[in-house]
Amino acid sequence: MTGPVAPISVAPAVRPRIPAARFGARLAQAQAGVAERGLRAMLVSVGPDLVYLAGYEAMPLERLTMLVVPASGRATLLVPRLEVAPARACPGVAGGHLDLETWEETEDPVDRVAHLVGGFGSAFAGRATPDRAAVSDRLWAFHLLRLQAVLPGAVFVSASLVLRDLRIVKDADEIALLRLAAEAADRVMWEIAHGRLVGRSEADVAREVRDRLLAEGHDRADFAIVGSGPNSASPHHEASDRIIEAGEPIVLDIGGPFGGYGSDTTRTIWVTGGDATRGPDDEFLRLYSVLRAAQAEATHAVHPGVACERIDLVARELISAAGHGAHFFHRTGHGIGLEGHEDPYLVAGNAEELRPGMAFSVEPGIYLAGRYGARIEDIVICGDDGPIVLNQLDRDLLVVTG
Amino acid sequence: MTGPVAPISVAPAVRPRIPAARFGARLAQAQAGVAERGLRAMLVSVGPDLVYLAGYEAMPLERLTMLVVPASGRATLLVPRLEVAPARACPGVAGGHLDLETWEETEDPVDRVAHLVGGFGSAFAGRATPDRAAVSDRLWAFHLLRLQAVLPGAVFVSASLVLRDLRIVKDADEIALLRLAAEAADRVMWEIAHGRLVGRSEADVAREVRDRLLAEGHDRADFAIVGSGPNSASPHHEASDRIIEAGEPIVLDIGGPFGGYGSDTTRTIWVTGGDATRGPDDEFLRLYSVLRAAQAEATHAVHPGVACERIDLVARELISAAGHGAHFFHRTGHGIGLEGHEDPYLVAGNAEELRPGMAFSVEPGIYLAGRYGARIEDIVICGDDGPIVLNQLDRDLLVVTG
Repeated sequence: MTGPVAPISVAPAVRPRIPAARFGARLAQAQAGVAERGLRAMLVSVGPDLVYLAGYEAMPLERLTMLVVPASGRATLLVPRLEVAPARACPGVAGGHLDLETWEETEDPVDRVAHLVGGFGSAFAGRATPDRAAVSDRLWAFHLLRLQAVLPGAVFVSASLVLRDLRIVKDADEIALLRLAAEAADRVMWEIAHGRLVGRSEADVAREVRDRLLAEGHDRADFAIVGSGPNSASPHHEASDRIIEAGEPIVLDIGGPFGGYGSDTTRTIWVTGGDATRGPDDEFLRLYSVLRAAQAEATHAVHPGVACERIDLVARELISAAGHGAHFFHRTGHGIGLEGHEDPYLVAGNAEELRPGMAFSVEPGIYLAGRYGARIEDIVICGDDGPIVLNQLDRDLLVVTG
Repeated sequence: MTGPVAPISVAPAVRPRIPAARFGARLAQAQAGVAERGLRAMLVSVGPDLVYLAGYEAMPLERLTMLVVPASGRATLLVPRLEVAPARACPGVAGGHLDLETWEETEDPVDRVAHLVGGFGSAFAGRATPDRAAVSDRLWAFHLLRLQAVLPGAVFVSASLVLRDLRIVKDADEIALLRLAAEAADRVMWEIAHGRLVGRSEADVAREVRDRLLAEGHDRADFAIVGSGPNSASPHHEASDRIIEAGEPIVLDIGGPFGGYGSDTTRTIWVTGGDATRGPDDEFLRLYSVLRAAQAEATHAVHPGVACERIDLVARELISAAGHGAHFFHRTGHGIGLEGHEDPYLVAGNAEELRPGMAFSVEPGIYLAGRYGARIEDIVICGDDGPIVLNQLDRDLLVVTG
């Protein structure tokens, strides 16, 4: 980040895609999980689980789209008739891995789902052992309440019982996309950090971040936190109309999906406005130095078999030892993939052990309310022998004219 | 749309906002609804209901944000601690209309919600008459399943029981925003329809649509359907890599939120590439003429007291009489406001009567699979004496060089 030359754009002309055959394998694994757990079916609505299993992306709307994966037999994607063309083109359907059905505007799609599950109405009710059906985590309550009404004898559980163990470990194609996403975000961060900042509003800088993320090939620019001065002490600050001044830090936390897989990186910089007397004060330098060490040690601790909460503890102990324990009030990291936040979470109480292929952020922060704060965030893969860090920008405090 | 001059930009320098006091009134109405319906509480997570009641926008994430509106007493907004700053600034909290509480990273927020509801665990269970709690339609199943586990005696119902009657009628401030959204979308449509099209990919045109929607002040550009040639026959076609050719129609369906309130408009144009022999064929002209009449008559039928399904029927009868009944396979319209699709729906079977202040699309379409299709869409307000049409572009078939 301190080098004089911007990172070289290495975005390939043709973006890698998840091979179409992969969706067949994922569906087979998911169906095996449904059977193993004694579920009657898994019901997956629009969202990351549907992208994972069928490669099908659609807007979450009031019209129900639902993939029904029974314990045995063919899976079926049920979509509104007016979306049949894009549904037919998705790899899950085009590859012959699942059947496609449509419902008409005057039909009740929930009845159709119940029929596909094979347990319409009373067929589910009144059994000694109720049937269980899994639903995707992002299914709207609007739809789940209707399903529960139509299948009164069923017990509904989270589809993550089956899918989290599949999605939590990324394969080589997924890691390739996460790496491209990180590199694209790095280039945006470099440009922003070395551009003009003093005198501009946070919102104006955030707009530039979003434009650059899209220009770098991101599907969307989901977030662009620009927290200047006292706003740097609010971890989820939205960019505001505040004008950036010389002599203060800025927390930049940017990202979004790239080929479906998320970027998410944070750097904290200090802008002087060219006035040598407006550099970082000693307290900020001490705070940043502690944070820098905590982020490095937490990253260094990543290794197969290490508990998620251990990574959090490594960062937290260093920060607490410096007297800032109360100023670090969020978890150290979150998984990332088809969702910006997903399993595994690096948080106290999560004893799950890291496995090769897990992808997550390492992002401790220190926040002094009303004054200023700092955060450093990289996306890290748990490799066979330790951490593989996808973000490449320098992590030392960058002091710029701005 | 056929005029030589682009619509004049009338976007005001200062965008109107919903007055802060309005949120207090909305909360009071919602609470009265909770009490009237014998609910113990209404639980509202991130999404349009939360924007409506508290003016609070946040990303829907795995960290629970929830507004708890009890049948009596103060309402409470529960947010993750790291989002306390933006939550404190929202009109509902800043205006003193509701209390703010935060939860820590190592806490279970669902337990906190149960406590706020006043019915933790067994307090709900085993009663002769179960307690009922309403949840917002967009609450994730992930959260609802947890709430159901923690409150096993409770019956969960949709918060729309209370909120749909409030949200379905727009007040003057909301209509002002819908009008600005429509006017901004009209300007984008005009520019796209009069720009270069032949030889460009649909995706490239869609990018221009999105850029222009944002430049015109939209919060987001949620959709930009560009369906050219045979793709015009797929109502929810996504813009593809197909290159637009001379001598074919293009369906343009664009929109997104503007100050929180949605735009959504469709025009169908025909591009000749400057070749007089490549104008629309007779069948397309007949099809479009029927569609034009159906959209006009359906709009004309809008009046207080008319059933929603009647508007649908007016359009459908005209299209069916022309032999295209099977080619119009979606409803005639959907409500619009804080959501792109919301109540009321103009669809067969919906006997709800239109009331002044209701806002919805009127958008019949005719689609000949594999060949071409057309759709015309305006946003219409039900006024005291008839329709108030917010979109102003001409609806005759626009034949352009492209």
